[in-house]
Amino acid sequence: MSRDQSTSDPPVTVADVEAARERITDVVHRTPLDTSRTFAELSGATSIGLKLENVQRTGSFKIRGAYNRMAQLSAAERERGVISSSAGNHAQGVALAGDLLDIETTIVVPEVTPAAKIEATRGYGAEVVVEGDIYERSYEYALERAAETDETFVHPFDDEAIVAGQGTIGLELLEQYPEIDTVLVAIGGGGLVGGIGTALKAAERDIRVIGVQPEGAAHAKPSLEADAIHELEDVDTVAEGIADTRMLETTFEIAREVVDDVVSVSDREIAAAVTLLAERAKTVVESAGAAPLAAALSDEVALDGEHVGVVVSGGNVNLTDHAELTRTGLHELERYAEARLALADWPTAVGDVAATVESAGAELDALERARRTAVDHPNRTPVTIGLEGSGPEHVDGALEALSELEGVSIVDRSLE
Amino acid sequence: MSRDQSTSDPPVTVADVEAARERITDVVHRTPLDTSRTFAELSGATSIGLKLENVQRTGSFKIRGAYNRMAQLSAAERERGVISSSAGNHAQGVALAGDLLDIETTIVVPEVTPAAKIEATRGYGAEVVVEGDIYERSYEYALERAAETDETFVHPFDDEAIVAGQGTIGLELLEQYPEIDTVLVAIGGGGLVGGIGTALKAAERDIRVIGVQPEGAAHAKPSLEADAIHELEDVDTVAEGIADTRMLETTFEIAREVVDDVVSVSDREIAAAVTLLAERAKTVVESAGAAPLAAALSDEVALDGEHVGVVVSGGNVNLTDHAELTRTGLHELERYAEARLALADWPTAVGDVAATVESAGAELDALERARRTAVDHPNRTPVTIGLEGSGPEHVDGALEALSELEGVSIVDRSLE
Repeated sequence: MSRDQSTSDPPVTVADVEAARERITDVVHRTPLDTSRTFAELSGATSIGLKLENVQRTGSFKIRGAYNRMAQLSAAERERGVISSSAGNHAQGVALAGDLLDIETTIVVPEVTPAAKIEATRGYGAEVVVEGDIYERSYEYALERAAETDETFVHPFDDEAIVAGQGTIGLELLEQYPEIDTVLVAIGGGGLVGGIGTALKAAERDIRVIGVQPEGAAHAKPSLEADAIHELEDVDTVAEGIADTRMLETTFEIAREVVDDVVSVSDREIAAAVTLLAERAKTVVESAGAAPLAAALSDEVALDGEHVGVVVSGGNVNLTDHAELTRTGLHELERYAEARLALADWPTAVGDVAATVESAGAELDALERARRTAVDHPNRTPVTIGLEGSGPEHVDGALEALSELEGVSIVDRSLE
Repeated sequence: MSRDQSTSDPPVTVADVEAARERITDVVHRTPLDTSRTFAELSGATSIGLKLENVQRTGSFKIRGAYNRMAQLSAAERERGVISSSAGNHAQGVALAGDLLDIETTIVVPEVTPAAKIEATRGYGAEVVVEGDIYERSYEYALERAAETDETFVHPFDDEAIVAGQGTIGLELLEQYPEIDTVLVAIGGGGLVGGIGTALKAAERDIRVIGVQPEGAAHAKPSLEADAIHELEDVDTVAEGIADTRMLETTFEIAREVVDDVVSVSDREIAAAVTLLAERAKTVVESAGAAPLAAALSDEVALDGEHVGVVVSGGNVNLTDHAELTRTGLHELERYAEARLALADWPTAVGDVAATVESAGAELDALERARRTAVDHPNRTPVTIGLEGSGPEHVDGALEALSELEGVSIVDRSLE
């Protein structure tokens, strides 16, 4: 990376972050830092401190930057209103900031935006305009309209005041977790890591800043390695909140200075982290918010002997989506399996399956028995089961017990 | 109730609770108090403060009482060990207390106990003995073995030191939420409400103590009304952690003094509270832990103008069970529906259903299309769908749009 390649004045300084804190301190929550024994043990770190921005107002850190940005508008600018484009957490941050500062806000969203997200944004008082088949089109429309109406366009990340606002998380981390050696922060467009990195790199101690991206949207590492912004052609990840194709000028310039390394995690690792956060920390996290913990639990970064801050950036996830994520996570943790069975056409066969699973110490989560017989065998009934165990040994034990059961054959196990 | 019917010395005093706090303070978490705007608005209260014992060590408040009890054992008693019976949170509390105090612990569980619960208990260092087809048999076995071996039997609730330990939550509430007017606490055997009530009734202000039970295990109100312990023949509730048939002597005597009223909530209301806690407070709660919030959101208790403490007692819930609870909760909140459709046998019909749901602002969570045709119509295909909306209007709107679709008829909506 290019820490020694000196540039002129950095776009954002720790003084900017401190000024941001003054502005936002009465409005945003100082979110809790939850130190977890379990995650320290699982990661090899000496301690893990979860910075819980999922319980921030609006359910994510985005209110910090949005409020810091909008609180600096002049009276005339406030009068003309604010416009932005976002299908996610930034929309709610801008909407709430507008409500608190008495500024009219308009959020442009693409046509595919779920009704629930639109309503959450309206619930904070923004006007929502649906325009464009993809996000880029909504973004362009918002810029065009801002040029026409003199509304202020508030960018989701590539803005110095936004970055400074997100950086207030770094100041809180230094107070709540002064022993911190390394921080893990998700990178989408790079606003969050830029702000937190700016705050932490100004500390007296040397604190390592590691960015985390999903494998399907991993543009930051090639950017920092080439020392030029790398743009992805497309992205594919469960972590919608950080499914960006690139950093932009401001965030890239800051990331070059403050980010020590970038690692990537798979969607399945993210799902496992969502699962463990629900199970062990009892906290509901969206996929993007779980990516840093996924990195901590992976082999991608060595944390032995360190105190590690993990920024849990948001918790805005539809509960049925969360339910599916945790099922995938249990599967990644080898505690859930799906299997297709072929059963002999005996009246007791289904009951035998259920009893066998339970007596192997696993639980039967789902069982679907088709009315029809198997297409390839006139005397077998296809049954699909989902089973859960507290460890891989129970899941494997149950499948093995099933395979030994008379009249039952396992046709296949779950997709990988 | 019988507040003026004076008895001799109460079994537990606030001094006992304060002494308990001294004993446990270095060992248990002082859990957070989360004040929630959303829940205040939904309930009509001025404020709601959630006391989050679901993030307590072992995932529930039970460690408080267990540690307070076991820390008072003599050296000789510690040497002989502790035995208890529990298929739930008490088991883990006793196991961890034993680990911390260097006391060997044995937990007797019934045969039906899920492997995951057994392992969690073993994970804290207890020996687990499986004995008895139902809990009562495990309990009897533990008492018999204690009599033989001179191990100390630690009761899950009917014990003065247990009650005093749970009461430390009340002291924390007074510090963290001094404006508290009313507290809502779940009642299973009555240890938790007895302890918290003892602490709060010693405060200078008059604080109302309301017990909450599931409709399927509602023994406390008849007990207090009759001023005699009422025992249920059986219980039927999703809230396993408070599925008790009765209070016992100690807890009843305390409840008579400190409990102002008892209300009951349905399993569906509990599921809705689990859902709202996940969605709005981003916190994972077991059914028993959500019962007090369910009461706050019901019409059972008037909270207008009050500051209301809600004790979220535990978070030990299997994640696949949690997922099912939230789906039921969304249904109770009229944001989820299941419906059986009969589709014309056109190639586009399934696609039309999916598109119609989405364009009505709802999301299609599940769609199952049988291979067979409907039993009662040779030219229709049965399809079952699950759909979710951010409000009842989206769910109803989607169903209405489906009913107007050519080639689609709605056979029925979900079970109630």
